[in-house]
Amino acid sequence: MDTIKTAEIICVGTELLMGQIINTNAAFLARQLSEIGITSYYQTVVGDNPARLSAQIRLSASRTDCVLITGGLGPTADDITMSVAASVAGIPLAMHEPSRQAILGYLARVGRRTLTDNNWKQAMLPTVGTILPNHNGTAPGAIMPCVIDGHACVLILTPGPPSEVIPMFNDQVRPYLEARAPHSLLSHYVRMVGIGESKAEDMLKDLIATQSNPTIAPYVSEGEVVFRVTQFLDNSEEPDRTGPLLDEIRRRMGHYIYEIGPRNMPQVVRDILLDQGLTVSFAESCTGGLLSGALTDWPGSSAVFRGAVVAYDNEIKTKLLQVPEDMLVRFGAVSEETATAMARGCRTLMETDYAVSVTGIAGPEGATADKPVGLVFIGLSGPKDQHEVIRLKLNGDRNRIRRVTVLQALNLLRRRLLS
Amino acid sequence: MDTIKTAEIICVGTELLMGQIINTNAAFLARQLSEIGITSYYQTVVGDNPARLSAQIRLSASRTDCVLITGGLGPTADDITMSVAASVAGIPLAMHEPSRQAILGYLARVGRRTLTDNNWKQAMLPTVGTILPNHNGTAPGAIMPCVIDGHACVLILTPGPPSEVIPMFNDQVRPYLEARAPHSLLSHYVRMVGIGESKAEDMLKDLIATQSNPTIAPYVSEGEVVFRVTQFLDNSEEPDRTGPLLDEIRRRMGHYIYEIGPRNMPQVVRDILLDQGLTVSFAESCTGGLLSGALTDWPGSSAVFRGAVVAYDNEIKTKLLQVPEDMLVRFGAVSEETATAMARGCRTLMETDYAVSVTGIAGPEGATADKPVGLVFIGLSGPKDQHEVIRLKLNGDRNRIRRVTVLQALNLLRRRLLS
Repeated sequence: MDTIKTAEIICVGTELLMGQIINTNAAFLARQLSEIGITSYYQTVVGDNPARLSAQIRLSASRTDCVLITGGLGPTADDITMSVAASVAGIPLAMHEPSRQAILGYLARVGRRTLTDNNWKQAMLPTVGTILPNHNGTAPGAIMPCVIDGHACVLILTPGPPSEVIPMFNDQVRPYLEARAPHSLLSHYVRMVGIGESKAEDMLKDLIATQSNPTIAPYVSEGEVVFRVTQFLDNSEEPDRTGPLLDEIRRRMGHYIYEIGPRNMPQVVRDILLDQGLTVSFAESCTGGLLSGALTDWPGSSAVFRGAVVAYDNEIKTKLLQVPEDMLVRFGAVSEETATAMARGCRTLMETDYAVSVTGIAGPEGATADKPVGLVFIGLSGPKDQHEVIRLKLNGDRNRIRRVTVLQALNLLRRRLLS
Repeated sequence: MDTIKTAEIICVGTELLMGQIINTNAAFLARQLSEIGITSYYQTVVGDNPARLSAQIRLSASRTDCVLITGGLGPTADDITMSVAASVAGIPLAMHEPSRQAILGYLARVGRRTLTDNNWKQAMLPTVGTILPNHNGTAPGAIMPCVIDGHACVLILTPGPPSEVIPMFNDQVRPYLEARAPHSLLSHYVRMVGIGESKAEDMLKDLIATQSNPTIAPYVSEGEVVFRVTQFLDNSEEPDRTGPLLDEIRRRMGHYIYEIGPRNMPQVVRDILLDQGLTVSFAESCTGGLLSGALTDWPGSSAVFRGAVVAYDNEIKTKLLQVPEDMLVRFGAVSEETATAMARGCRTLMETDYAVSVTGIAGPEGATADKPVGLVFIGLSGPKDQHEVIRLKLNGDRNRIRRVTVLQALNLLRRRLLS
């Protein structure tokens, strides 16, 4: 096959059909195809069943140049992918002596000296195409150019465990596909906060409709809005021509954009604090530690984050954060006044440049007539006792309210740091 | 449709085909089907393309009783799932006034008062079947019984974001499927901590191999080991016959089992504290707020959890938790001594019955020759100044180390509370 324009992914395994494991292989392989510039229109999961697997390979081969098949190459009787794929491709299997030696060597290295007959099954490999040695397990893969029902196609088989498929793909399959891909892709991610997906798309719809290379398209992401700008490259020397389109997006949406690049919100905030040599602390009520958890998810946060007080109980707000008791009585724990006092108290206590506070009603309990579930105040205290507070009215369940609050709290800090 | 024996899952989204997000929805839906007792032979991912989506729905409908379709219900021009599915099913769409009102209400609640034309598209819904209100977003779902190419089938459409599909499935789709499943299942979840999956499976392998009804099988779950004991019921009057098997599992694995039931570790700990009328506080270093975040994920935690100090910086450990400076110098922040002092200091500061502390090296930075990545100390301080500390040496990346530490910290508290 000279050029591979399209590919499909088939993942084989009953544990995927039962939902016992998440299909990270499909995402990995799909991302690789996308980076290489090969278009994929379908991914399929099918069990270790000869009739259904055979039908699926035949269907996929009829509509694409390349079928990537992962899983079902193990030593047990369940594992039928190699024999089924070879049979559909009309390619006989035979004992492959180098693979038999490699399996023997691998089992000896991991300390298993008693081999079962099953292991030899894994050395029964196609007599046409390329065998892919497995340096991280016993199952070799294979690349089988073939003609199925009159349609030329390449079947590429790799094992199921991510620790085997990822290196085998990177070292052996990727170069094969790159040499045959029609073009490669260059992508930039534009990340926004504080705007809904439909409003954002409305503000960009003429660009989405008219741009052909580079293109811009919405990209779904939990709790934020992301657009992807993609340029098709005919060769690797071609320059990045996405600049003018990115400038136009920035001109229209600059207020909402927090990053054009790979970083998420906690990483962006961490990096701004690092750049400016500043520190932050948090006073959390309804988020209960998640705001601190989000920032500390990322290495390097210890240079900018000193600590937090999770003040779930009102007494903790008073005792540690110096929120006056009469303020709590008069305005309530969920109020602009308390949010401001928490941030100030936290900044003093933790001796940081900035402090961010969160107080709100995450639900399902705790709502009152004038303080509904989803009401959240985020306070910010900074140098020279500057402070501000924002009020949010969020929708969704406890989990969503807490997650969106974390994003908004980090965004409030980000905007202040950049202002 | 009276009985639904088989179902297929179709996930719609170019971002899945591009590998930009991992298909957690497929795993979630597959697990639900498996629990309900409905067999699934295929999962497919297809992009937002009318011809391919339509062909896939037609293919899936030809070989199964029910097609679960998720994604592509958004407000943008890309989102075509509802119109394509209705068209394949031969069901007209019309403006659904209650959904139009709900979308209006949702957007108002989240503070967006300027609506785009796009949003109204989401209220164009099938005129046959059941509309599924979405309480966590704007896109309603639908259940459409239909006949496609002479084959009776039910199409069930849900939105793509996990925060929308999970509650919609649990509240509205699951009861529909349970009422039509060929037999019902009675399941008990045996949850363990402190043991690896392969060792646990080894200790139960004879039961896994020989039991037919009830059955026992491993059930994949992040960061803990769960086995599911399942009895197939021909009718709802059949008694629970899982007792003897559960007793045998308890006899073998009792030391590791923290729950036989639906609750996860934070919920179990919350309930024990509620039962005993006790309070807890946390002092977190390497978990950076995640321990508090895990407990406060669940309603009712405010009655038992007073607060936490995230002491990321050593000065915070000294200032707020009264960890002596010379102890930090002599033993280091990651030490048995510091863990104990943090727990004691936290319990005093927060005035709680118990306090749990965490200090460790989550990596990738911060390791030294004698303090490698994955070294974690968890301290516990209780009434009458009783205290204990455990030392863990965990494997994996930063994310896994932090998650396992949270589980182990809660388990230490649980065991103390029950001793």
